[in-house]
Amino acid sequence: MREIEFWYEFASTYSYPAAMRIAKKAADAGVAVRWRPFLLGPIFGAQGWNDSPFNIYPAKGKNMWRDLERICAAENIPLKQPPYRFPQNGLKAARIALAGESTGWTPDFTRAVYAANFAGQKDIADDAVLGGILRGLDLDPAAVVAAANAPENKERLKAQTEEAIARGVYGAPSFTVGDELFWGNDRLEHALSWAKTGGIA
Amino acid sequence: MREIEFWYEFASTYSYPAAMRIAKKAADAGVAVRWRPFLLGPIFGAQGWNDSPFNIYPAKGKNMWRDLERICAAENIPLKQPPYRFPQNGLKAARIALAGESTGWTPDFTRAVYAANFAGQKDIADDAVLGGILRGLDLDPAAVVAAANAPENKERLKAQTEEAIARGVYGAPSFTVGDELFWGNDRLEHALSWAKTGGIA
Repeated sequence: MREIEFWYEFASTYSYPAAMRIAKKAADAGVAVRWRPFLLGPIFGAQGWNDSPFNIYPAKGKNMWRDLERICAAENIPLKQPPYRFPQNGLKAARIALAGESTGWTPDFTRAVYAANFAGQKDIADDAVLGGILRGLDLDPAAVVAAANAPENKERLKAQTEEAIARGVYGAPSFTVGDELFWGNDRLEHALSWAKTGGIA
Repeated sequence: MREIEFWYEFASTYSYPAAMRIAKKAADAGVAVRWRPFLLGPIFGAQGWNDSPFNIYPAKGKNMWRDLERICAAENIPLKQPPYRFPQNGLKAARIALAGESTGWTPDFTRAVYAANFAGQKDIADDAVLGGILRGLDLDPAAVVAAANAPENKERLKAQTEEAIARGVYGAPSFTVGDELFWGNDRLEHALSWAKTGGIA
């Protein structure tokens, strides 16, 4: 089966509709998805940004929230701007998402964290919030968090972020099909088409 | 008739497919287009950039050219990366485009300049290139250039750029429908839908 890799960061706004849309879109296209959480912080830091570009450039940030409102309304995806500081810290959630890959609950966990962040107005760096999400998936928070915080899992997340950089990723969400890189929620359809046909039209 | 305003800068890569697509897409949607050339330089300068973000951030720039290749191939729009320095200087072309608004040749001139820049590998700041484009439209280059360089037309372009900033524009292409702002070639369909129905889906 053809595959796309879905690179996402839990703080990233446009990764939210991508995470909510990708499973059905990919199934409809007959394309498999590999869910690849990574961290934008090191990438933005290397570009000289110590904050989200949506905060650094206010006109861009203002329009991003309005654009996201329009997109989520059209897709029937609930959206409530986080009352906490934006962007939130997605490190713990990314470690947990990665720890779930081998047992298959990464997509469900990912969607639940995005919903908590961008619809539930929850702090996704809060252990209680993450524990609640894990319990909602019938997982044992203590066991999962221990696996997430194991040194080899922490190293794996670092390696995943380094792989993203090596493959040209500079923002989230991104999609890769082999060497072909697509950036942005609005490129999901292009990536799926590329995986299927080697073209976007 | 419903209207969208199309804000473009001649140096802007994604403004190229937007300029080539907008007339037919808008006609199909029953929406009028007001062509509004402006300058990105003052906007980028205010953000602390003295160059295109596609040069400042090389990973982003590399993927932009690849993404543009894919998009232009899908739309049957020829694309050859300018051999000159990128971005080119679009000041003269913007003044001319604005001078043509009252007599109606702005869209044809705009498309010809984008084609010269992104397919013809021409220097669009070269008077001979601009003169050739004007002659191709059966216009008198000397008369047009005189009108373009008249103080009131130069001031009008400044005012147009200031209006863009006041209305939230931070990049090109942008589209406005009243107070609603859409950024990017990939939002053209959203803007047209908004003009027609007040929604994007």
